[in-house]
Amino acid sequence: MQKFSSKIPEPFTEFSKLLVDLPKGSLSAVEKVRQRDKTLTKPLGSLGQLEYLVEFMARWQETENPAMNNPMVAIFAGNHGVTDQAISAFPASVTAQMVANFTSGGAAISQISKLHGLNLRVFELAIDIPTGDITCVAALSDKACAATIAYGMEAIAGEPDLLCIGEMGIGNTTVAAAIYAALFGGPGSDWVGAGTGIDEAGIGRKAKVVDQALALHKENLDHPLKILARVGGREFAAMLGAIVAARHHKIPVIIDGYVATAAAAIAFAINPAILDHCIFAHVSDENAHGKALKEMNKHPMLDLGMRLGEGSGAALGAVLVKTALHLHHNMATFGDANVDEKEVSKE
Amino acid sequence: MQKFSSKIPEPFTEFSKLLVDLPKGSLSAVEKVRQRDKTLTKPLGSLGQLEYLVEFMARWQETENPAMNNPMVAIFAGNHGVTDQAISAFPASVTAQMVANFTSGGAAISQISKLHGLNLRVFELAIDIPTGDITCVAALSDKACAATIAYGMEAIAGEPDLLCIGEMGIGNTTVAAAIYAALFGGPGSDWVGAGTGIDEAGIGRKAKVVDQALALHKENLDHPLKILARVGGREFAAMLGAIVAARHHKIPVIIDGYVATAAAAIAFAINPAILDHCIFAHVSDENAHGKALKEMNKHPMLDLGMRLGEGSGAALGAVLVKTALHLHHNMATFGDANVDEKEVSKE
Repeated sequence: MQKFSSKIPEPFTEFSKLLVDLPKGSLSAVEKVRQRDKTLTKPLGSLGQLEYLVEFMARWQETENPAMNNPMVAIFAGNHGVTDQAISAFPASVTAQMVANFTSGGAAISQISKLHGLNLRVFELAIDIPTGDITCVAALSDKACAATIAYGMEAIAGEPDLLCIGEMGIGNTTVAAAIYAALFGGPGSDWVGAGTGIDEAGIGRKAKVVDQALALHKENLDHPLKILARVGGREFAAMLGAIVAARHHKIPVIIDGYVATAAAAIAFAINPAILDHCIFAHVSDENAHGKALKEMNKHPMLDLGMRLGEGSGAALGAVLVKTALHLHHNMATFGDANVDEKEVSKE
Repeated sequence: MQKFSSKIPEPFTEFSKLLVDLPKGSLSAVEKVRQRDKTLTKPLGSLGQLEYLVEFMARWQETENPAMNNPMVAIFAGNHGVTDQAISAFPASVTAQMVANFTSGGAAISQISKLHGLNLRVFELAIDIPTGDITCVAALSDKACAATIAYGMEAIAGEPDLLCIGEMGIGNTTVAAAIYAALFGGPGSDWVGAGTGIDEAGIGRKAKVVDQALALHKENLDHPLKILARVGGREFAAMLGAIVAARHHKIPVIIDGYVATAAAAIAFAINPAILDHCIFAHVSDENAHGKALKEMNKHPMLDLGMRLGEGSGAALGAVLVKTALHLHHNMATFGDANVDEKEVSKE
C-alpha cells in the first residue's frame, strides 16, 4: 500500500464525514446466533463458511434474526474514454447494449437473479458521455466524482437487506488496473489481464496505458479519492458510494470481482475498517484479482474461474447466504429432533 | 496408490462386469454445447466452472440439452462396530436418529434440498446391525458386501438426472481413514481427523484403530473390493454401487466429502476411468480429504470449510449445476440481444 495524505480533497468533504465513526455492527446479535447454532442437529462448526455467513448477516443487520427478503444486485454501468487506446476486445457500444440486455433478461446476471430470487437493478452512469481518456486527462473532475459517489449512495434507496455490488463498462478492467497500481504500487504489468478476452499484444497495451496514466497524473494521486477521480471512472465512484451508504444503513454487502474490488480498494486505502461489512464473493480469473485481495487481506468465498463481472460472482455468494440463513432458521434442534448430543458436551 | 491384484474376488464377479466397457459419454453433445455457449452474451470462458458444468452434464446425459428436472440427493446410512473403540464424539444411536431427522425435514441436507428443489432419498442399510468391529473382525463378509453394492445400485431406480452421493454413519470417518490407508498407503495418522468433533486424544485413538485394523487384515487387502469388505462398511459399498450404476444409466454424479470420496476411491483403485462421470463437490475440512483428492488428481469445486457429510457439499454443487444449466438455456445470444460481438472474432 502506498502512503497517502490524510487531507480530504475539498469536493469530498461531505462524503468524508461518512468514513469515520463507522457503525460496528451488533456483536450481541452474533452471540445469539452462535447460541442457536449450538442447538442445531449437526456437529458444531460443520457447516463452515455457511455458519460464518449467518453471523456476518446478524452482525451487520444488527439482529439475531438476519433475513434475506429483499436482496439486491446493483450493477453500475459507465463508459471510459480510455477505450480509444484499443484496450478492450469489445467495442464501447457494448456497455449500452448490455445494459439493455440486463433489463430484458438476457444476461447471465439477469438469469442468475431470476433463478435465485435476487432483485436486479441497473444504475446507468451517463454512459453516453465517456469519462476522460486517462492517458491524456483526468477521468473525472473531483466535483463530478463526488457527485457520482453521492448518486451511488442512492442504490440503497430500495432498502435491500443484502447488497451485491456489480458493474459493467467496456474498458473498466484497464481502469481498475490503474487504480490498483496507484493504490498498491508496481507497474501496470503487475495489474492488467485479459479482461473480456484481449490477446497478449492487447494486454501489453493495457499495461502501457496504465503506466502512461500514472505518469501523467503522478502529482495528483496522493489521496485515494483523487486516484478515483484521476484514473478511475463513474461506476467505481458509484460503487464506493453504495458500499459506504450500506454500512450506515445496516446493509451487508457482497463485492463481486476484479473491477468491483477496485472500488472497495479505494475505501480500504482510506480506512480498512470501512470494508468490515463486506464479503468478497469470489476470486476472479482476471489475473491480478487474487493479488489485490491479498493486499487487503481479504479471503474470497468461491474460486470458480469466473471473470464476467455484472455482479455474477456476488450473486452466487448471495445464494450461499440465502442457503445459510435458511438452514439456520429451519433446521431442527437436538431437542426438537430427539437426537443425542455430543457425548463430551454432556459431561 | 498401492499395487493390487487384478483378480476379482468371487462374490463380486457379477458386479465386476460393470467395471469394464464403460460408457464414455457423448463428446458430440459437448461440442454442441460449446457451439451454443459461443453465441451467448458474455465473453467466451467468462463463466468458468459454470461453463464446464454444462459440458459435463451434456457429456454424461448424452444430450446437447442437458437438464436437471429430477436431481436426487441419496444418503446411505450405516452403523459400525468400530464405534466400540470410542472413536466418535457422538453415540452410535445418532445414526438412526439422524435418519429420522432427514425424513422429517430437520437436518441440514433436508433444508438445503427443500430450498433448492433437490429430491432427498435416504437408504437405510441395516442400521440396527452394525458391521463388524474392524479391529477384531471383517466389517462384512465378501458376500454381504457384494449384496450391499447391489442394493446401492437401486439408488438410480427413481431415474434421477443428477445423483448427489452422501452418507450418514457414526464412526464412518474412522472407516474411511482405514480405506484410504489401505488404498494409498501410510499410517492411520496420515488419514484420520476430528470427524464430528473428537478431541486430540480421540484422533490418536482413531489412528491406532486404523493401524490395528490394517495389521489384522493385511493378508486380505490385496484387492480394493476386499478392502471394502474387510475395513469398509455398508454405506461405502452402497455408494460404490450407486456410482457405478449411474455410469451405466447416463446419470452424472456429484460426490460429497471425505466419507463419500472413500467409496469413490475404491472405484478409482480398480479403474480410474470409472469416476469420469463424477464431480467432486468440495474439499472437506476433515483433515485428509484434500490429500485423498490429490491422490486421485481430482479438483473439488468448493472450499467452504464444511465437514458435515449428509451430501451437504454435493447438494451445494447441484445448486451450481442448476444455475449453470439455467444460464445456458436462458441467456440471450448476441444476435437476440443485438449486442456487438468481440471485435477480433469479426475479422
